[in-house]
Amino acid sequence: MRGAAGGTRARATAWAEEVHDFLTALFERLDGVARFREDRWDRDGGGGGNSRVMTDGAVFEKAGINRSIVMGTLPAQAAQRLGGRGAAAGSTDFFAAGVSLVVHPRSPRVPTVHLNVRYFELTDANGVRTDHWFGGGTDLTPTYPHAADAVHFHRALKQICDRHHAGFFGRFKPWCDEYFTIPHRGGEARGVGGVFFDHLRPDEDASGLDEDAMFGFATDIGHSLATAYGPIVERRKAEPTNERERHFQLWRRGRYVEFNLVYDRGTHFGLHTNARVESVLMSLPPLAAWDYAPVWEPGSFEAELVAMLKPREWVEG
Amino acid sequence: MRGAAGGTRARATAWAEEVHDFLTALFERLDGVARFREDRWDRDGGGGGNSRVMTDGAVFEKAGINRSIVMGTLPAQAAQRLGGRGAAAGSTDFFAAGVSLVVHPRSPRVPTVHLNVRYFELTDANGVRTDHWFGGGTDLTPTYPHAADAVHFHRALKQICDRHHAGFFGRFKPWCDEYFTIPHRGGEARGVGGVFFDHLRPDEDASGLDEDAMFGFATDIGHSLATAYGPIVERRKAEPTNERERHFQLWRRGRYVEFNLVYDRGTHFGLHTNARVESVLMSLPPLAAWDYAPVWEPGSFEAELVAMLKPREWVEG
Repeated sequence: MRGAAGGTRARATAWAEEVHDFLTALFERLDGVARFREDRWDRDGGGGGNSRVMTDGAVFEKAGINRSIVMGTLPAQAAQRLGGRGAAAGSTDFFAAGVSLVVHPRSPRVPTVHLNVRYFELTDANGVRTDHWFGGGTDLTPTYPHAADAVHFHRALKQICDRHHAGFFGRFKPWCDEYFTIPHRGGEARGVGGVFFDHLRPDEDASGLDEDAMFGFATDIGHSLATAYGPIVERRKAEPTNERERHFQLWRRGRYVEFNLVYDRGTHFGLHTNARVESVLMSLPPLAAWDYAPVWEPGSFEAELVAMLKPREWVEG
Repeated sequence: MRGAAGGTRARATAWAEEVHDFLTALFERLDGVARFREDRWDRDGGGGGNSRVMTDGAVFEKAGINRSIVMGTLPAQAAQRLGGRGAAAGSTDFFAAGVSLVVHPRSPRVPTVHLNVRYFELTDANGVRTDHWFGGGTDLTPTYPHAADAVHFHRALKQICDRHHAGFFGRFKPWCDEYFTIPHRGGEARGVGGVFFDHLRPDEDASGLDEDAMFGFATDIGHSLATAYGPIVERRKAEPTNERERHFQLWRRGRYVEFNLVYDRGTHFGLHTNARVESVLMSLPPLAAWDYAPVWEPGSFEAELVAMLKPREWVEG
């Protein structure tokens, strides 16, 4: 319903708060020891956010969960990057409510995970809504080649997607593979993928989902780490590791930094819209390494991990 | 002289080789122990390079000196970023010869330094030269607030600039300040600056320098680290340091990564022109840290260093 944006904004705000709290509780439980520190902040230009960061946990070396409810006028560059219908028509007032999470586990045996869910609106000069959509996704970035973890993650996401639409997983899994690609590293993937979606418009999307159904789907994606990631943490956190794995983990984190700073649209959106920089860059690892032109011995765990960084069907379609 | 590009290319090639060798010898001497490993590479599309990397030296944790002599057709995006006259006219064949250097010292007491010099040509579809220029510069990035080092560096660069044109230092020092700015960090500078110049066209530049004179200037900038940086290494390398300074160094290196991956034009040019990625990203530090929203105690060395990251006149104009 065009123009009746107010109700949706209130709903999106409450939705983001719930997902944020859910993930905060989940990761405090998974860590078992550390608690999140919370920083509330205002954005110049409208809105603000709530950043929760855990450092030096038992399981998580760094975990950041950010909620932002922001609005205002989009800089031209940011509007263009967004790709919304309104932006093309010169309508660059926006509202966005979302949650993003990145955790960097201490042990190289526990994979890194990222999640983001967001609701977006564009309005014209009269405040009439011209476009609105959902976006988000979650992806897994292992350091150690536990193929079973990639299978578990994908299987759990497929189950969640299937509950909402039979075509979602088949559509959002390759989208994730495409998005988390590092072109300057010869098309290497950031990790083993997951799901990614954007511009999912209520009532207009091919799935036929309305706004209610899409909030339901976005909520389930927001909650997905409880089943998709929690069990991986539980079964890997006590595995023995060593300095060699630790160094490889730091080196792999360098790639994470490269992707986020060079390509990630969310990061660039944040850097170009006056968002609080410490919250935007919360995704960066506590420690990262760059080795010059390393060569991994055939058959080594490093070579095996690198070989996993190509899109693959981890579960049956 | 339009069209007579061949001779200049040969000269630029020999010039880049000399500067590369000069810097290689200088940094092996400054380190005293480690030697550079050399990798020669070809570029898909034309030309190639020679990357020399030192790791785990006595003084330098990582040092990279890259020489590239590349040519071919520029991707539209890269041509646009270049800003040359020919690029605007649709002339996107190019030739570039240059040397770039980044060293990350082991001790937080020794500053990081970067240097780049390059000769660039654009040619039209008939191979006629439509534009050519010199670019380059050098800048210092300290971890420890030795103001005397910034003064020394700027003074040495001013002496070199003054030998070639009385107006150069006053023109290239603020250009450096402007270039090495990190907008998303509130305009914080990457370091304490130095000199930076681009599109310096023989016979056309306001300085009146011809091609000979410009090769002379670019050579002296290429050699500048012998006087501008060498003495700083000598007087700082044996200073006692500690874990707190080391951690601050890793955190400051995070900013270096942010600048290079988000803003640096040379890095983006490399990433978008099929250059060898390990050579383009040789500038990244061996180890870097990101702390969440750190607060530096007033009066601490950290606070003092951060206060130095604003453009300042380090020497009398």
